[in-house]
Amino acid sequence: MAKNEKQFVEEITPMDVDFAQWYTDVVTKTDLVDYAPVKGFMVIKPYGYALWEKIQAFFDAKIKATGHKNCYFPLLIPESLLTKEAEHVEGFAPEVAWVTQGGNKTLEERLCVRPTSETIICTMYAKWLKSYRELPYLYNQWCSVVRWEKTTRPFLRTSEFLWQEGHTLHETYEEAEKETLDILQMYKEVCEDLLAMPVIDGQKSESEKFAGGERTYTIEAMMHDGKALQSGTSHFLGQHFTKAFDITFSDREGNLANPYHTSWGISTRLIGGLIMTHSDNRGLVLPPRIAPTQVVIVPIAANKGGVMEKVDEIYAQLKERGISVEVDDRPNYSPGYKFNDWEMKGVPVRIEIGPKDIENNHALVFRRDTLVKEAYSLEGLTDSIADLLERMHYDMLEKARAHRESRTSVAKDMTEFKKALEEKPGFIKAMWCGCPECEAKIKAETAATIRCIPFEQEDLGTNKCVYCGKEAKDMVIIAKAY
Amino acid sequence: MAKNEKQFVEEITPMDVDFAQWYTDVVTKTDLVDYAPVKGFMVIKPYGYALWEKIQAFFDAKIKATGHKNCYFPLLIPESLLTKEAEHVEGFAPEVAWVTQGGNKTLEERLCVRPTSETIICTMYAKWLKSYRELPYLYNQWCSVVRWEKTTRPFLRTSEFLWQEGHTLHETYEEAEKETLDILQMYKEVCEDLLAMPVIDGQKSESEKFAGGERTYTIEAMMHDGKALQSGTSHFLGQHFTKAFDITFSDREGNLANPYHTSWGISTRLIGGLIMTHSDNRGLVLPPRIAPTQVVIVPIAANKGGVMEKVDEIYAQLKERGISVEVDDRPNYSPGYKFNDWEMKGVPVRIEIGPKDIENNHALVFRRDTLVKEAYSLEGLTDSIADLLERMHYDMLEKARAHRESRTSVAKDMTEFKKALEEKPGFIKAMWCGCPECEAKIKAETAATIRCIPFEQEDLGTNKCVYCGKEAKDMVIIAKAY
Repeated sequence: MAKNEKQFVEEITPMDVDFAQWYTDVVTKTDLVDYAPVKGFMVIKPYGYALWEKIQAFFDAKIKATGHKNCYFPLLIPESLLTKEAEHVEGFAPEVAWVTQGGNKTLEERLCVRPTSETIICTMYAKWLKSYRELPYLYNQWCSVVRWEKTTRPFLRTSEFLWQEGHTLHETYEEAEKETLDILQMYKEVCEDLLAMPVIDGQKSESEKFAGGERTYTIEAMMHDGKALQSGTSHFLGQHFTKAFDITFSDREGNLANPYHTSWGISTRLIGGLIMTHSDNRGLVLPPRIAPTQVVIVPIAANKGGVMEKVDEIYAQLKERGISVEVDDRPNYSPGYKFNDWEMKGVPVRIEIGPKDIENNHALVFRRDTLVKEAYSLEGLTDSIADLLERMHYDMLEKARAHRESRTSVAKDMTEFKKALEEKPGFIKAMWCGCPECEAKIKAETAATIRCIPFEQEDLGTNKCVYCGKEAKDMVIIAKAY
Repeated sequence: MAKNEKQFVEEITPMDVDFAQWYTDVVTKTDLVDYAPVKGFMVIKPYGYALWEKIQAFFDAKIKATGHKNCYFPLLIPESLLTKEAEHVEGFAPEVAWVTQGGNKTLEERLCVRPTSETIICTMYAKWLKSYRELPYLYNQWCSVVRWEKTTRPFLRTSEFLWQEGHTLHETYEEAEKETLDILQMYKEVCEDLLAMPVIDGQKSESEKFAGGERTYTIEAMMHDGKALQSGTSHFLGQHFTKAFDITFSDREGNLANPYHTSWGISTRLIGGLIMTHSDNRGLVLPPRIAPTQVVIVPIAANKGGVMEKVDEIYAQLKERGISVEVDDRPNYSPGYKFNDWEMKGVPVRIEIGPKDIENNHALVFRRDTLVKEAYSLEGLTDSIADLLERMHYDMLEKARAHRESRTSVAKDMTEFKKALEEKPGFIKAMWCGCPECEAKIKAETAATIRCIPFEQEDLGTNKCVYCGKEAKDMVIIAKAY
């Protein structure tokens, strides 16, 4: 293995040498993504897009099963609509791309390339909605959005990204609140059940909430380097937009009322999270449920009698079982090269099989996550591999959770806080009085931000704000973040 | 039925009164689409989007089964890239939307919102491709494109539309040519096997081909009013773009070569075609394979004993069979209202069941396409309905084909041509010498264009060009078109 190891060390910068460069190497050298000619824009290559398709399929099935429907709203939004909700325009206007010319003519009104679609969708909802009988509106769209970012990094922050944005209307406050939380739960399932990426769910502070909304709920994951990644947000928007856009319906008593409103989104950013949760110095490590190819079979001495027959047999059985499997029978590459190649690509399981293995009635099975290679009996190999893939999902989830726990500290005051952040960069649990001044000062002094007020509150043995020492309101998770 | 009929006549303008208004009424009043605030842009509502999702799923499965992969290229393309292929920029520049400001700053170079992605994709391909071993590139993307259109109509021609665009590279001319034709065949299957919309496949004339390409293949459908709808195009681009963008690879002999290139697309325009092929004065008529809801069950006197039990039983059996079915048990609406509602929505089959039907051991089954209602025995009802849906697909395809035949004329000279176009607006089969002057004059005098040179050539009993009378090269289909 020494030789392989060396090859990778040369190709991919090790994490502990330069974490940012490690990330860039992994995403570009494993063919997930490339830089586009316009700064800040990315091309999602087929291998990267296959990950997004899996996320789409998983989440789309969940929202459809709960009565949501997809639709499509225009890419371009007139400036006059963007400015209708005051806080919203303040939040988004600075990062908008403007279309000013169409068909060789200067437009009378600038059109923004959607940074998010509340304003255009609310405009249409105002036109459509008449009666409480039509509620709830449970609509979603899959599309791309543009936000003119200054500092970008593939998947994590790019000037254009792919996402889904759900926009729902409800008769009552309670229903809308429930929707917001139900969706957050589905986002948690995308992260934990598909990506094996554990998240903490909670509420954003006032200063971190969606521009124009009432409350934002979030799921926060921890990356390898201890930084937080906001992985999905679900906004309870109350009646802010429905009033600004004059969306009304005649309620059960025949009175005109404004509905309650939610919006929620996950994006290709999740792919960045996936990578910084599981991958290593050899390249990608993909959890089995998201891996486009779950198993690769590498024949050893393929020209020897019986090898390819056995390989084809194993391939057929795995495929029959619904496992996504490939055979690497490229004639001009050595097994060592192939091993490297598939390890870098993060394929969860590799099966090696040659004449000696067949003689011994076994195959060598390599786990990408643990780098452990073991002999598996050819009897019941399909069952063993199916079990292994299932187990790997939970092992990877658990490993990521253990990493998060090992990088989580408790701080009672700012001395403890700064020490923890210095010695063990990661999540810090602390009490907070709830005032934006303390929040801003923590950020100014440490560059760490309140990631969320977790739903699951804990007793930290103090009831004093970590910053001001006054009576605290909530336990919060504070961390540096992407 | 007289009353229902009247209701619809009031709501949807009859085709023979005003065909364009009929179309607008159908697409807007059946909740497929709405007009967006920016002129020429549309909102695709959930019911319309469900049709697009079916088209996507059908075609995506076909291209994946043949080794194609999806990916995503940026929305915004620098002006300098658009201008690299001379004919291409000439064709597209006049209808482009330009982003000139981003993040509150004026950009140094204008960025166009992609009208199609050859230029950005070729730029990336030039960067990626090294060796013949990597070929073919079989990539596709699902996205929206913007073309600043002057006259628009929902689905048929809008300033933004959804589509897929495939962009492939091949080692040889023959492989690329084969790809172009294979894809055209898949497009034909989308139209005929999914939408029950017959098409004629053939090649575009020089003047109608893709800007910057070598040859364009097309499928052309006939609408209710006899006009043609170009329903999908597949372009053999030769080496035009690969040379302009300097895409090279080292070939089997170790020499540097330019690959051969194809691109191909179908769009939400197909939904317009679907409507103008099958729908009628009552509203939508959806062929069973594309219908989001294939069967609706309307209980009659639902409060009477046994009715809802029977309805639930039928519902469960149909669902079990994989048929998409809904029960309309809305309490405050009469059966008549519900019939109208579902007919307007184009649901292929309606099952009515009340106490008397149960007594008689039958259900009334209404076919949306023929408007025929018949009693079906409750014994084996699921089988009967499954058979009916299958049969309806072929019946609708056949009906549309018969309509096309009945509106197709042969013209040997321009006198016959003009007479045919006047008396029976539709497709005209004629011989053509192949010169662009005759083509242009036919268009100038009649507003009809050469839709395609069909693959299936026929003997029209003359070998003289319909316009100039000189020796003809090909039989062509000429028609007015959307």
